[in-house]
Amino acid sequence: MPKQENQQSSFSIHGIGVSSGIAIGRAHLVSNALLEVVHYQLPKHLIDDEIARFNTAIHTVKKDLEAIRESLSKNAPAEIGAFINTHLMMLADKSLSEIPKEIIRKEQCNAEWAIKQQMDGIVEQFDAIEDEYLRERKQDVVQVVERVIKVLLGHPNQAPNQSSTKQQTVKQQENATILVAHDISPADAIQFKQHHFAAFITDVGGATSHTAILARSLNIPSILALQRARDLINDNELIIVDGSLGVVIVNPSKEVLAEYKLRQEQWELEQQKLQRIKATKAVTICGTVVELHANIEVPEDVVAVKASGATGIGLYRTEFLFMNKRGMPDEEEQFLAYKQVTEAMKGMPVTIRTLDLGADKQMNPDTVSSCANPALGLRAVRLCLSEPQIFLTQLRAILRASHFGHIKILIPMLSTLSELRQTKLLLERAKESLRKQDMPFDENITLGGMIEVPAAAINAEAFAKELDFMSIGTNDLIQYTLAIDRTDDAVAHLYNALHPAVLKLISMTIKAGERLGKPVSVCGEMAGDAKLTQLLIGMGLRQFSMHPSNILSVKQQVLHSEVSVLNLHARKVLNHTDIEKIELKVAQFNLH
Amino acid sequence: MPKQENQQSSFSIHGIGVSSGIAIGRAHLVSNALLEVVHYQLPKHLIDDEIARFNTAIHTVKKDLEAIRESLSKNAPAEIGAFINTHLMMLADKSLSEIPKEIIRKEQCNAEWAIKQQMDGIVEQFDAIEDEYLRERKQDVVQVVERVIKVLLGHPNQAPNQSSTKQQTVKQQENATILVAHDISPADAIQFKQHHFAAFITDVGGATSHTAILARSLNIPSILALQRARDLINDNELIIVDGSLGVVIVNPSKEVLAEYKLRQEQWELEQQKLQRIKATKAVTICGTVVELHANIEVPEDVVAVKASGATGIGLYRTEFLFMNKRGMPDEEEQFLAYKQVTEAMKGMPVTIRTLDLGADKQMNPDTVSSCANPALGLRAVRLCLSEPQIFLTQLRAILRASHFGHIKILIPMLSTLSELRQTKLLLERAKESLRKQDMPFDENITLGGMIEVPAAAINAEAFAKELDFMSIGTNDLIQYTLAIDRTDDAVAHLYNALHPAVLKLISMTIKAGERLGKPVSVCGEMAGDAKLTQLLIGMGLRQFSMHPSNILSVKQQVLHSEVSVLNLHARKVLNHTDIEKIELKVAQFNLH
Repeated sequence: MPKQENQQSSFSIHGIGVSSGIAIGRAHLVSNALLEVVHYQLPKHLIDDEIARFNTAIHTVKKDLEAIRESLSKNAPAEIGAFINTHLMMLADKSLSEIPKEIIRKEQCNAEWAIKQQMDGIVEQFDAIEDEYLRERKQDVVQVVERVIKVLLGHPNQAPNQSSTKQQTVKQQENATILVAHDISPADAIQFKQHHFAAFITDVGGATSHTAILARSLNIPSILALQRARDLINDNELIIVDGSLGVVIVNPSKEVLAEYKLRQEQWELEQQKLQRIKATKAVTICGTVVELHANIEVPEDVVAVKASGATGIGLYRTEFLFMNKRGMPDEEEQFLAYKQVTEAMKGMPVTIRTLDLGADKQMNPDTVSSCANPALGLRAVRLCLSEPQIFLTQLRAILRASHFGHIKILIPMLSTLSELRQTKLLLERAKESLRKQDMPFDENITLGGMIEVPAAAINAEAFAKELDFMSIGTNDLIQYTLAIDRTDDAVAHLYNALHPAVLKLISMTIKAGERLGKPVSVCGEMAGDAKLTQLLIGMGLRQFSMHPSNILSVKQQVLHSEVSVLNLHARKVLNHTDIEKIELKVAQFNLH
Repeated sequence: MPKQENQQSSFSIHGIGVSSGIAIGRAHLVSNALLEVVHYQLPKHLIDDEIARFNTAIHTVKKDLEAIRESLSKNAPAEIGAFINTHLMMLADKSLSEIPKEIIRKEQCNAEWAIKQQMDGIVEQFDAIEDEYLRERKQDVVQVVERVIKVLLGHPNQAPNQSSTKQQTVKQQENATILVAHDISPADAIQFKQHHFAAFITDVGGATSHTAILARSLNIPSILALQRARDLINDNELIIVDGSLGVVIVNPSKEVLAEYKLRQEQWELEQQKLQRIKATKAVTICGTVVELHANIEVPEDVVAVKASGATGIGLYRTEFLFMNKRGMPDEEEQFLAYKQVTEAMKGMPVTIRTLDLGADKQMNPDTVSSCANPALGLRAVRLCLSEPQIFLTQLRAILRASHFGHIKILIPMLSTLSELRQTKLLLERAKESLRKQDMPFDENITLGGMIEVPAAAINAEAFAKELDFMSIGTNDLIQYTLAIDRTDDAVAHLYNALHPAVLKLISMTIKAGERLGKPVSVCGEMAGDAKLTQLLIGMGLRQFSMHPSNILSVKQQVLHSEVSVLNLHARKVLNHTDIEKIELKVAQFNLH
């Protein structure tokens, strides 16, 4: 990937700001494609060690391949042996076994990055071949390199990844690192949580992609959909990330840098001001109480929940328990996780959403979904009902944890009443089995349903009759109502929470809950957007669940709200059928 | 794929009947996966020719590979040469160069089938290998075999595919051939149209898959989702396909065969009876006129439209013009196609839907969509608005054709008003350019929109204000409302036109049209389902568009309808929130 190296002049790139705040720091590029290989520089005295590490890896892969060749049965097709020989030959070839060492020495970089750079070059040569099937042979090169990189990554002691990054950045004027990637998969995200990046910026993604959710959950500025950030920005270049405006400034001038340092301070001051209302109850001017709950992914998030002043957990996403490893977590492991959260919340409600896997969140990150439209496929409660043993295990674990606090169960992706009824039967079966084993659980545990499929919102009254509470998942509801995949760059600009049809479905669901006396909350991204708080209050919403980092700014809106005024405003908004007019009307809310 | 060869006993397999009627004939298996290789038997005297054909193909591929190796530049990576050598070695190996000839001789089958069988065996051996990257090397075997098969198929003169099939079947007692496939892609479908199969049966698919639409468009019985039909049925076995019941009977006993021949005659008799109402106007008992229009894909379909007694074309799908070739059809080619249909319809309305590509229908069948959820991506009007030149060309072609009859323009996949307004601007621009060139077109041409995204149905009144007419695309509307991909086997059973939310959206759209005096039609599969005709009339629908083969059975329902009674019934149905109860209620319609 050739880059213009003479870009010392300042320039800016525009994308979608998905997490507010300002970060100033050095760009840290991660490479493309299958191999998300990290790049870091090494001090001179470690170069020889790095080359030795590389030699060891090549040698290990060679031994592995030879061992596989030896172990082949006599009946194995002759081709298999031939492939091993081909791969061994590739491995022995100068291009893979020697040139990367030159790169390590010359660029003072880590071994993984060096061999990856070399591979990219070879792949480019393959890409230039006209014959299609030969062109595809580049996959073999990729596979051999992948083997080497896997071995390299399997020796983390010798790859001082994080500490070297710090070493490097401390030497810089700006001691923050900004991750620049093409995209961040949910699996990467888990890994990146351990690093300490000051901001994320990516070429693709949208406001509600996993990267966005991750950035907000880490409470760091983030800009997505920058298109060519990775091409335009050089590793280690100084950049400013303005998450509120969605702008990245590369190589800022001294004046701009000074200006942004000021703005950064102001931003932090504002955040501190918000801290003052942390202990304040979320009550409108007219005295209406609004519950502000938090969304969490792992038990460790409870610390942030407590710090935010949230009065409960409105959405505990359990799939992260299932995604970070190969096997299924057993009942005991789940029980302990749920119990830990429940006990830490000390009697405040903890709403546990049952498994929402399928679609973009796969149980095994290596599995590539084979269905054409995973978002319209076997996911969430559909998957659980088709795998009742997994579902029962989770329900038992949740029930057992309910003995230790105030747990509520939330079922994702309901579209028909019969799914709900099947779920109730399984829940009853789980309870029965616990009773037989004399295991205690909360006999009064309540069951709620996510309203996130248009069919469920349209049929909300029927669902409200058979549920104890409802939670509107606006991210998916918008996606299906508009038929827009929010993670698809080609159409992401059409994704809009203020589409009149979306507002109508949300309103219908809230009203259905009101009529039947069943609480309704919103737990999608809309709930955490302070610009929409007063609209939702006006529409009748009294319970919001959002990332802990948004609680205070939403609370500030609540404190300035007057229900009767907002009801009128909301009614006017709902009467409009043009998105543009709705956006204008909603902007006026913020005057109050 | 080992098959139980001793299956001479009769048995039946159940699937989803997607096209009614009864077929009795010999099974014609097409092979799996990438290579949809046809299997046919050869008379003894042609076996030597077939082996010679195979030898020639192997030789040709060898020469091709050697030529590629010779043409490699000195700078090419060493691996490339090595791969060619590996593939040449595979080609020379007995397993690919000799064993298929033994198979041809022993099984008296065509060369493609023989080498494919052999490949399947080798691939199975690879699949048993534990090492993941080696296991994937089976792709090389597949590629070499693909090369051979492509060469074989490139010599159709020597592969008397179709004529030999006929030769063979004429000798049989039953002179019909039934296609047994794993699946039929839209691209295959176009190819299969030229064959003359008496029925289609496939392992996968659902009621509204492309295979189903194709079967109905060919008016031949068809059963999908049979799971393992291809494993259980042997090539050339006698089978009965009962498309109405969704049952395949393999190796029927004499009694069953006789019974089914009788039923087949009765079915044909009923079809003939329906022919009597062909010229009858579709009017209810109480005198309400119902328009029954036809859906078509290619100008040739007009013959069937005329034969059906349809009073217009409610949906002319133009994408088939774009799918069957590599380049874009130019304005002239499109103009001629639209003009041909319009002139043939002699003043009856012809509703031309603008390009609905993207999602599952790709312009180039070799392109694999890279977006995660194509159904929620850049398709239909979204794609057209992002490629205004393609859109303008089509609009100009439609406008020019409008001079020769009664054309209406229909825009697919609208979700926001701004898409509609952008479309209107482009249409105006197309008109302006024609006026400047003094090219005549219908200045009163009307513009309609497909209501198939939930957002559009919920916002139907706003769309009705800015459109001349609306057409409900129930297939997509159901898909998005329920978040169910109708072609995904794992969830196809959840796809249900009678979900209360679906009926509510249809009803809302019809009512919005009524209030604003804008005609509304239904052009999805629901329109052609005679079991739903009276429900839809009761809901206020007065215009149906369906495959020509359904016109008469739907008309029969219209002739027995009394609007006031059906209105009451429909209201009762719409009050229900349980699918099961709705299904029961709708079944009662048929008593009238």
